[in-house]
Amino acid sequence: MIRKSIPFSEAEYQRRLHKTRTAMEARGIEVLCVTDPSNMAWLTGYDGWSFYVHQGVVVFLDRDPWWWGRMQDRNGALRTVWMEDSRIHGYVDNYVQSTERHPMQDLAANLGAMGVATAHIGVEMENYYYSAKAHAVLTHELPDATFHDATALVNWCRTVKSGEELAFMRRAARISEKIVDGLLERVEPGIPKNEIVAEIYRDAITGVEDGWGDYAAIPPLLPSGSDAAAPHLTWNGEPFRKGEATFFEISGCYRRYHAPFCRTLFLGEPSDILKAAEAALVEGLEAGIDAARAGNRACDVANALAAPLERANITRGERCGYPIGLSYPPDWGERTISFRAEDETVLEPGMTFHFMPGLWMADWGLEITESILIKDEGPAECLCDRPRQMFVKP
Amino acid sequence: MIRKSIPFSEAEYQRRLHKTRTAMEARGIEVLCVTDPSNMAWLTGYDGWSFYVHQGVVVFLDRDPWWWGRMQDRNGALRTVWMEDSRIHGYVDNYVQSTERHPMQDLAANLGAMGVATAHIGVEMENYYYSAKAHAVLTHELPDATFHDATALVNWCRTVKSGEELAFMRRAARISEKIVDGLLERVEPGIPKNEIVAEIYRDAITGVEDGWGDYAAIPPLLPSGSDAAAPHLTWNGEPFRKGEATFFEISGCYRRYHAPFCRTLFLGEPSDILKAAEAALVEGLEAGIDAARAGNRACDVANALAAPLERANITRGERCGYPIGLSYPPDWGERTISFRAEDETVLEPGMTFHFMPGLWMADWGLEITESILIKDEGPAECLCDRPRQMFVKP
Repeated sequence: MIRKSIPFSEAEYQRRLHKTRTAMEARGIEVLCVTDPSNMAWLTGYDGWSFYVHQGVVVFLDRDPWWWGRMQDRNGALRTVWMEDSRIHGYVDNYVQSTERHPMQDLAANLGAMGVATAHIGVEMENYYYSAKAHAVLTHELPDATFHDATALVNWCRTVKSGEELAFMRRAARISEKIVDGLLERVEPGIPKNEIVAEIYRDAITGVEDGWGDYAAIPPLLPSGSDAAAPHLTWNGEPFRKGEATFFEISGCYRRYHAPFCRTLFLGEPSDILKAAEAALVEGLEAGIDAARAGNRACDVANALAAPLERANITRGERCGYPIGLSYPPDWGERTISFRAEDETVLEPGMTFHFMPGLWMADWGLEITESILIKDEGPAECLCDRPRQMFVKP
Repeated sequence: MIRKSIPFSEAEYQRRLHKTRTAMEARGIEVLCVTDPSNMAWLTGYDGWSFYVHQGVVVFLDRDPWWWGRMQDRNGALRTVWMEDSRIHGYVDNYVQSTERHPMQDLAANLGAMGVATAHIGVEMENYYYSAKAHAVLTHELPDATFHDATALVNWCRTVKSGEELAFMRRAARISEKIVDGLLERVEPGIPKNEIVAEIYRDAITGVEDGWGDYAAIPPLLPSGSDAAAPHLTWNGEPFRKGEATFFEISGCYRRYHAPFCRTLFLGEPSDILKAAEAALVEGLEAGIDAARAGNRACDVANALAAPLERANITRGERCGYPIGLSYPPDWGERTISFRAEDETVLEPGMTFHFMPGLWMADWGLEITESILIKDEGPAECLCDRPRQMFVKP
């Protein structure tokens, strides 16, 4: 007896499918091969750590989606997708990491059998899980198809969150708050970093009363002192030290939905430079949150942030935000909109972003960030509720 | 002042580089673009969770390797690679997840400036971190280069581990043992899965006395009962139940080196079917370990395992092992050799594998596995030391 575990309502999946098909039709795509695990989950419910082998969901205009993956993962699909079992197909195991065969040969044969070998086929060209080789094999095997670059077609459909999705993100935000509360209490000079990370994971996975914790798409990042100039270093066994700032970049996760949240902790007495940077950053955050309104553009948020930073002589080269929601490793961003000066995307109610103006300077780093929701009216809502500051333990 | 943190000796990196250059020359490759983060780390020491944007290491026959990535990750490279700072290049941030520009334009321009625009260039066609789009852009920007598929060229160089690497894997194995000891003690009917996972992470990251814990490339997997038919489902908040087997697929990790280790726990009284499967599986594991000798082939291990399983009428379709060592998500395998009937690769001393004959049947699953090291003589050594059995809590 198979216990199905599907996170959202049938209406929610139909809404998503309708949106995706509309986008396909607008671009002349008849068959969409989705290989991004976040897009696969968003469309079908499929959830499993199986994206290290080739798999996908094929979306048609006139039929239910079709799940395709490794035979052993078919059992996972039977338990997690809303489509009926006949829409789930497993390929035999000797395609896996073979030097002689490629799984895309199996996908091509199946598409042929479904009568779409000459169709307009969309593929996600820019995706971790659609390799250069996968594309070479698929196009070789389907010489009469017309291929379209459908990179981020589904990601763009995901930008505005439904009520059901926001309920998940609010649970993730409660977990994020719990993580930050815990680490602010526990970090002291002399405690090894990995011991704090162990407690971060414990808090994250234990979760909160109405939300068990899932794995986040990015592990905790917590570089200290001059290493905080390097935003993507992971931890080691070195102790926290007095006189150093550490930023903590973390996210709670509930059923693959994220609410990233970063705070910085200084052990000792911060320098005037750091305090001035903190003041400018908080002012910029508040200006950005105020600019993050329906009808404004992504660049308006970036520009609002930039003004107080420039007055404090802080130059940032990086974008300061990206959309968030459902994600799998290696990234919890949705890879569509960027809060940067050149991005004129108009903000809509229900969009969610990690407003993330990290400062990574030559020999220090400071992160104070918010996960935000664009409202029908007024400034954005912050999903987490903790003081917007650099914390200091003297 | 930058604190460098490089895990291995200079001689070790020179050994790796020499091996890689030899493989390049054998295949007529003058310039090798490495985008697999495991290969990047193995060649240079680079370590950071930055592989969600395009980055790479370029290997030349006559010059030191050259690290290339996002500007903000340059700070991470300055701290973790053995090459001098002039061999580290960051591209500007508006290439990141842009709809107008692609980072491979920057890589191509740099290769041109280094005088290799007409060279024989190897790229890792089948890799999570070399997308179809990346290849399309790079080949478009370098029309006079000759491209070679160098998939797994470096991975094959990694198969035989050095003493320095084995020391890391032995620490990872101590962490794996600690994780399994902890979960066998803690799991009881009624305890929610996520609470056990929280403790697994805590044990994994706390690590052991001489080894702080790193994040593993795959999260803990622990499906129960009929869900154990689906090997890649992750956890939820449901309780463990009496009358069900749960397999635990975990790995300790020390500085990115893994020693995966799986054990199964039955709560209650296992059925005769499960007990018979356990007996056949343990017999097969022991036969496989005995066959895993220098000079034997990968298929010899698979065939040794298959015989007792066949006698017990258990048919496995999947490979039963893969090489392990240094890895980043989404996979802790090295993606070269497979223990399967058709793989005739000859085993060499120093090779390390996860001997992983999981049984995923229609409505139950059983995993008892070993991380093994091929020795100069005699059967393989198991890196972990715990009873090779299904554990039972009545």
